[in-house]
Amino acid sequence: MEVASDGSADSIPPMPAETPNLKAEVSALISNKDFASLKQKLAPWLPADLAPILAELPIEQLAILFRNSSKELAAATFSYLEHGAKYRVLKMLTQPQVAVLLNELSPDDRTAFLNELPLDLAMQMLGLLTPQERQVAQSLLAYPEHSVGRMMTLDYVAVRPEWTVRESLDYIREHGYDRETLNVVFVVDERGHLIDDIRVRRFLLSPLDAPVRGLLDGNYTMLSPTDDRERALELFKKFDRVALPVVDENRKLIGIVTVDDMLDVAEEEATEDIQKLGGTEALDEPYTTIPLARMVKKRASWLVVLFLGEMLTATAMGFFEDEIAKAVVLALFVPLVISSGGNAGSQAATLVIRALALGEFRLRDWWRIMRRELAAGTALGAILGAIGFLRIAAWSFFSNIYGPHWMLVASTVGVALIGIVLWGSLMGSMLPLLLKRLGFDPATSSAPFVATLVDVTGLIIYFTVAYLIMHGTLL
Amino acid sequence: MEVASDGSADSIPPMPAETPNLKAEVSALISNKDFASLKQKLAPWLPADLAPILAELPIEQLAILFRNSSKELAAATFSYLEHGAKYRVLKMLTQPQVAVLLNELSPDDRTAFLNELPLDLAMQMLGLLTPQERQVAQSLLAYPEHSVGRMMTLDYVAVRPEWTVRESLDYIREHGYDRETLNVVFVVDERGHLIDDIRVRRFLLSPLDAPVRGLLDGNYTMLSPTDDRERALELFKKFDRVALPVVDENRKLIGIVTVDDMLDVAEEEATEDIQKLGGTEALDEPYTTIPLARMVKKRASWLVVLFLGEMLTATAMGFFEDEIAKAVVLALFVPLVISSGGNAGSQAATLVIRALALGEFRLRDWWRIMRRELAAGTALGAILGAIGFLRIAAWSFFSNIYGPHWMLVASTVGVALIGIVLWGSLMGSMLPLLLKRLGFDPATSSAPFVATLVDVTGLIIYFTVAYLIMHGTLL
Repeated sequence: MEVASDGSADSIPPMPAETPNLKAEVSALISNKDFASLKQKLAPWLPADLAPILAELPIEQLAILFRNSSKELAAATFSYLEHGAKYRVLKMLTQPQVAVLLNELSPDDRTAFLNELPLDLAMQMLGLLTPQERQVAQSLLAYPEHSVGRMMTLDYVAVRPEWTVRESLDYIREHGYDRETLNVVFVVDERGHLIDDIRVRRFLLSPLDAPVRGLLDGNYTMLSPTDDRERALELFKKFDRVALPVVDENRKLIGIVTVDDMLDVAEEEATEDIQKLGGTEALDEPYTTIPLARMVKKRASWLVVLFLGEMLTATAMGFFEDEIAKAVVLALFVPLVISSGGNAGSQAATLVIRALALGEFRLRDWWRIMRRELAAGTALGAILGAIGFLRIAAWSFFSNIYGPHWMLVASTVGVALIGIVLWGSLMGSMLPLLLKRLGFDPATSSAPFVATLVDVTGLIIYFTVAYLIMHGTLL
Repeated sequence: MEVASDGSADSIPPMPAETPNLKAEVSALISNKDFASLKQKLAPWLPADLAPILAELPIEQLAILFRNSSKELAAATFSYLEHGAKYRVLKMLTQPQVAVLLNELSPDDRTAFLNELPLDLAMQMLGLLTPQERQVAQSLLAYPEHSVGRMMTLDYVAVRPEWTVRESLDYIREHGYDRETLNVVFVVDERGHLIDDIRVRRFLLSPLDAPVRGLLDGNYTMLSPTDDRERALELFKKFDRVALPVVDENRKLIGIVTVDDMLDVAEEEATEDIQKLGGTEALDEPYTTIPLARMVKKRASWLVVLFLGEMLTATAMGFFEDEIAKAVVLALFVPLVISSGGNAGSQAATLVIRALALGEFRLRDWWRIMRRELAAGTALGAILGAIGFLRIAAWSFFSNIYGPHWMLVASTVGVALIGIVLWGSLMGSMLPLLLKRLGFDPATSSAPFVATLVDVTGLIIYFTVAYLIMHGTLL
């Protein structure tokens, strides 16, 4: 039983035995090759209702089922499979069977499937489509990646304002054999132009002879197929809808986008941002399955850029070589001091980048952010500076490790930390804003990127502070 | 017009003038204080359908509307407002008006609203509730934060298997005055125990005299109120549902969770992970509005931990003080070499943490991950090592900056980079797995955390390589 296999349901008592369990029954009929009973069992159900249940059968049983069921049922079930499972099932079917299935798939599911195939396989699959379906598939694949057009489905119900509720419900009963999209009904004029969207519930709760026109409220929002999918995500969050209409430049309804796809979009967008923040290009495919060479390439590009930037630390250190030679003790604290600036910077960058992504503020608010970070950076720098000072002082109390001038060393580290942490916080917070202003993705200013910038400038701050404090004594 | 105010719709021609625009009409009636016509205008509509439209009115108009409309409409509209707007509207109402509104709110909206208020205000609000509603509110607030119980709504429709489709539809027509939740109908037995969930579409498309029992498919999944909301998110992604039932330990249906809340959950969970990865505690409130002191506290705790860890670099450097004194040139490359290890580690940690969060692999796959990172780390280390070697060689070709032993310096940096980048990749990938194994959040092994660990060990690798290569010459 499906429910019992879910971890958290362990303590919940099992269902009474007389409750139907379609999946188990279908599975048994397939195992027994009792295809007559199977057809009988499936007949009273809508493909859309069976699909999520049947999609959990093993691959082998699915292939048998697809050969012995209607093409509508096969297509609906296919769309619920994971990408890998889809591919494996197709390989168990004959080419004519694959052709029937592909032509029956809903266009958005087909786009998503083709999109994940290698180009040569995708072309083979396109070749199996009827000219009409091929045109639909090619027009959807022509929209840019991550655009609304790529996620669009054409399985929506549209009615006309002059119809009655009864006529609309009859039309829905006749044309409603789709998956998720019956929750919203779209109202279009005689040329197919969108007039309004209405939740199906309103039809259910209205008198049957009321005209659809009386249900209109003029409140709807819409997408263009070239909109970025992030915009769709924003609108779904703002308007609490289960489906949004997509219109062309003449306001003609050409498809819809459904909320269940949005959870995947939200996840993929977060993954991209997280990977960029970690200092690597977005992988665009799972970590566990991406070919090693491609992953190394995506990681190496940023790593090399950071390395070249970090080389400036060697140059900066070179300028202070004499100071280091005179007071080797200064070198001991280089990693401590500059990494603290990098850490403060990476905190600030992460917070600002996420706040930007969530639309918490706009670029013109930069001064507010800068004031916040001035205050936060000074406070954080003072905390770390005090700890650094006390640590050196404490060690010097018990040993002679930092020499007779330990007080100067402690002061240098303490003062430099205040400056560097403040500097890191400012750089970390302003860099994403600058990148966005220049038209780049703010998430590019990753923790490692900010840390590298702060390392170089941090060295200059550190040795300048050292020079000012130690001039005439150690230096 | 709402649509025109959306950026992307600019080029879409305006709606024909005769299309109704409820929001503008209602706004005009409120401005004219024509409350009789307002009541007449709103009368034929369901509160649930008006709410998202009216929620876009200005605050002042909303307050007037709430005083002049049914409590059902006021409550439904209120639930669509942003938290700040909710609070401002309430302040414009009298205490009895607030009490009526609060008592009418659906329990999950009330929980969410109370949850974001300061404790004293929340207590005042609880005091305005009837004993019965107060009990409901307190029982929901008693569930742990981020649990399914906190997001549960009680506005669902449940029918009985022995009813017919017609009886069910009549029941829905009578009890369906809620927001989003009519898309799924729950079937319960005489004691309220969950038997199945059925999409409302099936009722629409089935013969009116069919028994509900015939619509059951035994395929559903369910949540417990104490489940973490991340689990709900997973199930929604897996099962493509718009609502999932929540049952108590006896399988009794006690509420439902809807998909529109899941977009917010996905966003909040991603924000938490991103902030942790950036090396700060999750802020749990927007960056722009969190009080400065609280933000400094959340950032300082991690920054201090990292600082204390990074102090070990000074200790490690101290061990090699004599070597640095002999070959100051070694100190110049310390930031470059250890930061490269940190960058490689932060890449690996970020990729592994995200893959873990997405469920791409499990802990027992650690060996597969380690093999990948062994290969990737060696390749990345070799790339950076080669660049480092060539850079020092090139500089030495034109100047004497690295002295006569530049070849030894270049070799030390090149070899150390291979070892440190490999080490960073391994640490970065294994640390999240170790943290998870120990029961901590893997996102704790943030980029700065990994970088700090790699800094300390990287120094040891670097100076050990230097000792091996330069022993007898420079050292």
